[in-house]
Amino acid sequence: MDLEQFRTHAHELADWMADYLKEVESLPVRSPSIPRAIISRLPVSPPLEGEPFERILSDFQSIILPGMTHWQHPSFFAYFPANSSPPSILAEMLTATLGAQCMSWVTSPAATELEERMMEWLGQMIALPPTFTGVIQDTASTATLCAILTAREHYSFHTINQRGFTDGVTYTAYCSTEAHSSIEKGIKIAGLGKDHLRTIEVDEHYAMRPDILARTIRDDIRNGYRPLIVTAAVGTTGSTAIDPLRPIGEICREHDVWLHVDAAFAGSALVLPEFRWMIDGIELADSFVFNPHKWLLTNFDCSAYFVKNVEALVRTFEILPEYLKTTEGTRVNNYRDWGVQLGRRFRALKLWFVIRSYGVSGLQNTLRSHVRLAQKLAGHIAESGTFELLAPVPLNTICFRYHPAGITDDQALNALNARLLETLNATGKLFLTHTKLSGKFTLRLVIGQTNVQQDHVTRAWDLICETARTLG
Amino acid sequence: MDLEQFRTHAHELADWMADYLKEVESLPVRSPSIPRAIISRLPVSPPLEGEPFERILSDFQSIILPGMTHWQHPSFFAYFPANSSPPSILAEMLTATLGAQCMSWVTSPAATELEERMMEWLGQMIALPPTFTGVIQDTASTATLCAILTAREHYSFHTINQRGFTDGVTYTAYCSTEAHSSIEKGIKIAGLGKDHLRTIEVDEHYAMRPDILARTIRDDIRNGYRPLIVTAAVGTTGSTAIDPLRPIGEICREHDVWLHVDAAFAGSALVLPEFRWMIDGIELADSFVFNPHKWLLTNFDCSAYFVKNVEALVRTFEILPEYLKTTEGTRVNNYRDWGVQLGRRFRALKLWFVIRSYGVSGLQNTLRSHVRLAQKLAGHIAESGTFELLAPVPLNTICFRYHPAGITDDQALNALNARLLETLNATGKLFLTHTKLSGKFTLRLVIGQTNVQQDHVTRAWDLICETARTLG
Repeated sequence: MDLEQFRTHAHELADWMADYLKEVESLPVRSPSIPRAIISRLPVSPPLEGEPFERILSDFQSIILPGMTHWQHPSFFAYFPANSSPPSILAEMLTATLGAQCMSWVTSPAATELEERMMEWLGQMIALPPTFTGVIQDTASTATLCAILTAREHYSFHTINQRGFTDGVTYTAYCSTEAHSSIEKGIKIAGLGKDHLRTIEVDEHYAMRPDILARTIRDDIRNGYRPLIVTAAVGTTGSTAIDPLRPIGEICREHDVWLHVDAAFAGSALVLPEFRWMIDGIELADSFVFNPHKWLLTNFDCSAYFVKNVEALVRTFEILPEYLKTTEGTRVNNYRDWGVQLGRRFRALKLWFVIRSYGVSGLQNTLRSHVRLAQKLAGHIAESGTFELLAPVPLNTICFRYHPAGITDDQALNALNARLLETLNATGKLFLTHTKLSGKFTLRLVIGQTNVQQDHVTRAWDLICETARTLG
Repeated sequence: MDLEQFRTHAHELADWMADYLKEVESLPVRSPSIPRAIISRLPVSPPLEGEPFERILSDFQSIILPGMTHWQHPSFFAYFPANSSPPSILAEMLTATLGAQCMSWVTSPAATELEERMMEWLGQMIALPPTFTGVIQDTASTATLCAILTAREHYSFHTINQRGFTDGVTYTAYCSTEAHSSIEKGIKIAGLGKDHLRTIEVDEHYAMRPDILARTIRDDIRNGYRPLIVTAAVGTTGSTAIDPLRPIGEICREHDVWLHVDAAFAGSALVLPEFRWMIDGIELADSFVFNPHKWLLTNFDCSAYFVKNVEALVRTFEILPEYLKTTEGTRVNNYRDWGVQLGRRFRALKLWFVIRSYGVSGLQNTLRSHVRLAQKLAGHIAESGTFELLAPVPLNTICFRYHPAGITDDQALNALNARLLETLNATGKLFLTHTKLSGKFTLRLVIGQTNVQQDHVTRAWDLICETARTLG
């Protein structure tokens, strides 16, 4: 493919892209594909000779597209969204074309310096104290792993990196029973052992109970453990429960324990001043992560990780072989030393495009509208008589179940709601997922796709009511 | 930005992209930017109101572009390339538009099944034994970390994930003195301790010496250590030295040690049958990584990680919270359990576009041409009289230095060559980097950008000769 052919095809795709985003609503949200239906249509061996682009694009449309779950469909209410936006997609086009690998300052100064500035912008937008410094990670899983490793090194005086676990200290970690699986994953990777991760009981709102955290930490100290890190959730994955940062932070400061705040999804809501109560006490934290790729209109992947002690972070990861040595010294950041991976995409560009295109007020308007839609629907559910909310709705994640009169057995309700979920998703008209709250099978409906409007929510609610009635 | 505006801008960018790739040769390869020159032109705070796209694009061109190091410039000879190609960029446009998060099969069946097939294609293309199963990771750093963690769990009978390092065993790891920094990083992250990473002496070709590896492992066993993992390099970063897999593999099998093969860069050359000698003995390995994003015309990031024991890999990383439970069972892969991150971009699409657009023979032709150019230049250097090769050139990485008659002192030569490197790079006409080999400051010239031709290499060599003469 020469560059003039590339130009032609890029124009074809420009139209395809705009058409796709326009028509995505007409596609089934969750792919109706059955296991192995796609792969069975793909040749078992690669072609020896090149094929014309037309054939590849045509196969993309006929084989791949029906196998996609459409995350940018406005009726995608599943998981947490990974929303994007036109300016973000445009930036990704440029990032792909530049094809720069941004591991060090010299490998693209603009990528490094734009990243530094964008993280400052984000910090201001979500009202983080200026004592925090940011860096882009790929995902919150990686950012949380960075926090765990930095805590491990900081509190072991950087001896575990050097000598392994030879100091005879057994470190313990803490999160709520509702915390994200990435914490357990990070604890395992770091060699701390799942047995030393204490999952702290939650209150009736699914938020961590500081009194139990304090007691557990004290017990651990008495039993000879060294409490290392507490991960507080600002917005759990199940129900966006908000762990109370201030009392948790005070406990951490009292016992000199690292406090990491996982606000992967809900952190974007901090662009709205009315939600800043969620991080009251943030000055007591050591690190904080949220994902602009979830709810801030920025393409996956783009996770914003903030730390107070940059030196501890860099000292945890820095390795300087000869072939990476450069001469700019401490005047520049070399972000390869700020995380797990050496190679890095130019991710700051899409943040710049998104923030400038919408402006802070444009982003605020979008997020406020999502929250408003969710609050209204939550009201309908609460008043319905046949459905019930199963958790508070602080933001835009609604946890509920169908609970018709006459059925009181939780097991029967669980089976009924599992059936309801599958029936709904099979329509292709919307996509919800589930969780379990206090043993109850819970439908989760998250209103966060960039283009979701009242109309989509109304149709979803109508379909849910109607489908539920047919199930009994 | 509504969708019609998006369409318009996407078309503008389609032209910008084709123009950029056409004109990139006229830009300085390494950015001439000085530290903080870019960031000082970026407002310290985000805009409150949205800005028109024209202004953003114009700032991109005037502020960001001069701060880029142009990795897709054919005279980019630095590091290892991160080459791309028109079909890969087109695929990235689609990936960004779909905006799918491909953590589980259900979150996009096509992404999962295409990934499975593409890894089968790649395995066949590089002649890996079919006992290996592949998965896409972001970078080789992450893949190597996966290998270390899987080895840790496999040989600790999955107890370290559970209990931490409480079994009283001290594990040791091995790589050559020339191995990549990601190995040390992974050893640290996994909690094994840098002190337990043995760096094995290399021979005169910078390849690991199996006799010393065998002796070191035996000594470690005698001293009560448990040898865990050997990472062999097929193509070291310094000079693409090839560690001899077969004798290393035999030692690993004798002592039941995990053998991981890091072929991050050189692995792409295995599409050429004449280079398959590099992995003679691969059947003795447990895992293997190479990066199509380095030298197989596929945009960064896309690292292909192959393992024999998928069950051990998945068991190392799998965590199944309620909100991720699905119903397809073992009929499908859920790649979230095959690595560190939960979230995953749709990376298989660009592999599909690249392999089909070029065909295996097209990719072979491109790589062969790079190797041929490098071999020819290496010949010129060897015959020059004033330059000398400092390492064998098995592929397309040339390690050399200027060594004019009369200077015999290595320190003087090091200073001279450092000056030569900086003088060359400051011209903007090419970009080389350096390493140290046996204490000698070594210029590295890697011929691997997609569009590099004889002409670029000739001009580079002329400029190197000419510049060297002016320095003395």
